[in-house]
Amino acid sequence: MISEQIYMQEVLKKAWQYQLRTYPNPAVGALLLYNNEILALEAHQKAGTSHAEVLAFISAYENMSQQKINFDRFDANKAHAFLYDLPKEFFSECILFVSLEPCSHVGKTPSCASLVAKLKPKKVIIGTLDPIQGHDGGIKRLEEQGIDVKVGVCEKEALELIEPFLIWQERAFVLFKIAQTSNGKIGGGYLSSKESLMHVHQLRAVCNKMLIGGNTVRVDRPTLDCRFSLNTLGGDMAPNIMIYSKADNFDRAIPLFSVEGREVEVVSRLDFKKPSFILVEGGEGMLKALQHDIDWLLQYQTPILSCHNSNYEIDLKVKFMFQYKISVDLLLWSKIIKK
Amino acid sequence: MISEQIYMQEVLKKAWQYQLRTYPNPAVGALLLYNNEILALEAHQKAGTSHAEVLAFISAYENMSQQKINFDRFDANKAHAFLYDLPKEFFSECILFVSLEPCSHVGKTPSCASLVAKLKPKKVIIGTLDPIQGHDGGIKRLEEQGIDVKVGVCEKEALELIEPFLIWQERAFVLFKIAQTSNGKIGGGYLSSKESLMHVHQLRAVCNKMLIGGNTVRVDRPTLDCRFSLNTLGGDMAPNIMIYSKADNFDRAIPLFSVEGREVEVVSRLDFKKPSFILVEGGEGMLKALQHDIDWLLQYQTPILSCHNSNYEIDLKVKFMFQYKISVDLLLWSKIIKK
Repeated sequence: MISEQIYMQEVLKKAWQYQLRTYPNPAVGALLLYNNEILALEAHQKAGTSHAEVLAFISAYENMSQQKINFDRFDANKAHAFLYDLPKEFFSECILFVSLEPCSHVGKTPSCASLVAKLKPKKVIIGTLDPIQGHDGGIKRLEEQGIDVKVGVCEKEALELIEPFLIWQERAFVLFKIAQTSNGKIGGGYLSSKESLMHVHQLRAVCNKMLIGGNTVRVDRPTLDCRFSLNTLGGDMAPNIMIYSKADNFDRAIPLFSVEGREVEVVSRLDFKKPSFILVEGGEGMLKALQHDIDWLLQYQTPILSCHNSNYEIDLKVKFMFQYKISVDLLLWSKIIKK
Repeated sequence: MISEQIYMQEVLKKAWQYQLRTYPNPAVGALLLYNNEILALEAHQKAGTSHAEVLAFISAYENMSQQKINFDRFDANKAHAFLYDLPKEFFSECILFVSLEPCSHVGKTPSCASLVAKLKPKKVIIGTLDPIQGHDGGIKRLEEQGIDVKVGVCEKEALELIEPFLIWQERAFVLFKIAQTSNGKIGGGYLSSKESLMHVHQLRAVCNKMLIGGNTVRVDRPTLDCRFSLNTLGGDMAPNIMIYSKADNFDRAIPLFSVEGREVEVVSRLDFKKPSFILVEGGEGMLKALQHDIDWLLQYQTPILSCHNSNYEIDLKVKFMFQYKISVDLLLWSKIIKK
């Protein structure tokens, strides 16, 4: 076991905190090491804002200079411009860990590979190469600058992290979210912690569509917005809603239908062909109806055992992908094993 | 965030793998760092065998010298003697991380504090001081040798790790083990992975008593030995069994009663006053009967959702203490929050 793997695991752990929230970008984490001290551990947080490497360099700058920057670090153009202007050798003794090959193309943000090549840390350690054609080529730029590049540290885990990203290149990535007690009870009014609620709303804020069942609308009369997202990066939009129902007999006066800027559609057939991120919230009925379409399951397990009569009954095999605590709750990300 | 904390988290993670299996000793982990490379990451595995620090020094020796030792590393006397004979400066550039203050007293094994003082790494970083009177004093010995000692890195987590140890100083520590699907189904013939089964048997092998309900004996006719423990350190004994039952009407011909060297008693009243480690295996009935006596819950969650009609119904608050995967299963350690 070597330290490199431990640092990369920290990078992956950080990136998982923003899993799916970076849609349509992949989740990426980055760490800067100097003289065996971690100067920065950051993750990409939201598409259109600074990438993980950039945030790590900015934090590292603040750490090394003991000076706070006076601009918005999530503004990629400003952050890149600031970093380009630093003295040439500023990061030359640092080691950069990043879970995914720095991007070589210029999209909503400037190229990270070019920036890293300019900043020239003494070593760049990468989890996995960017598997998307046209996005690759990042390490070539680094190597051209004589930077020592190592690829493949915790590669399996680095690939698992970006699995949703790979799926939504091709078709819809479908996440089923469920909140349950640790003994599997749902819907009994178990509130997840405030932090878990915030997390759900952050996913709602970035998905293309939220998919719910007709009964949810009829019985729960929900709003399904993302008011608790509290995303300081802004840009949160209440999700567009897709109601899966044979009948279109809904009370249009409930809040669901009056959230500003939102589209609500009622569909009797589902199609997941279009590249997108679909968030499904529902109970046993929706889980059963969609069991062959769901890619991943996200369980929010509250630290409670309950005797409430509200089980969910389904036969599914899963693979536990990653788990961590948010506040007192356990978040368990699983992949559905398709037959 | 500093690297020290990350290394200590690795130490804690390693120690949790042997949680309770070190009974009556505390779970302890240790790591040796040299020139930013992890030379060794070890945990105490079984009472009476080498402590975490000793295993770490032995592994580090092998790593640095590229030579395998030719004796049993778990034999504490041999391991101490070997380490005492190494050249004086062998570990002088190493940093030792250990989750608990090295022991100063001589018990079944020689004092680790004396050994570490002799080996004199340049720094010793400790999670928490030994809270047991008479066991403390370890750091004093190190500081007397001029070793730089730092205490309190990840202290809260280091204390949580040894909570069972603190409890069984005073009274019985009661662990309730349950195997369930991720949606809370039990007893439907869900086999945990081979590795989880091994883990259960390793706990059985060290507990003072296994506590089960009368119906388990009547209906399941189990053996309840620890044949899958496969503990290479040896010394595994099938656990003594305490059957909690009003009536003593059991078929003495079932394997449970014929395991060699085991005591089986039938009790109609329970008492957890005596310092010990009690492992409870059972279903809903036992969980309900013992809900006020259980200290910790250990859930083996298999990566399955099932519609089997086998829920367990109880109202309990818990605190999730630690979670990790063993093979495909999730092990979730929780503390029962007593009212």
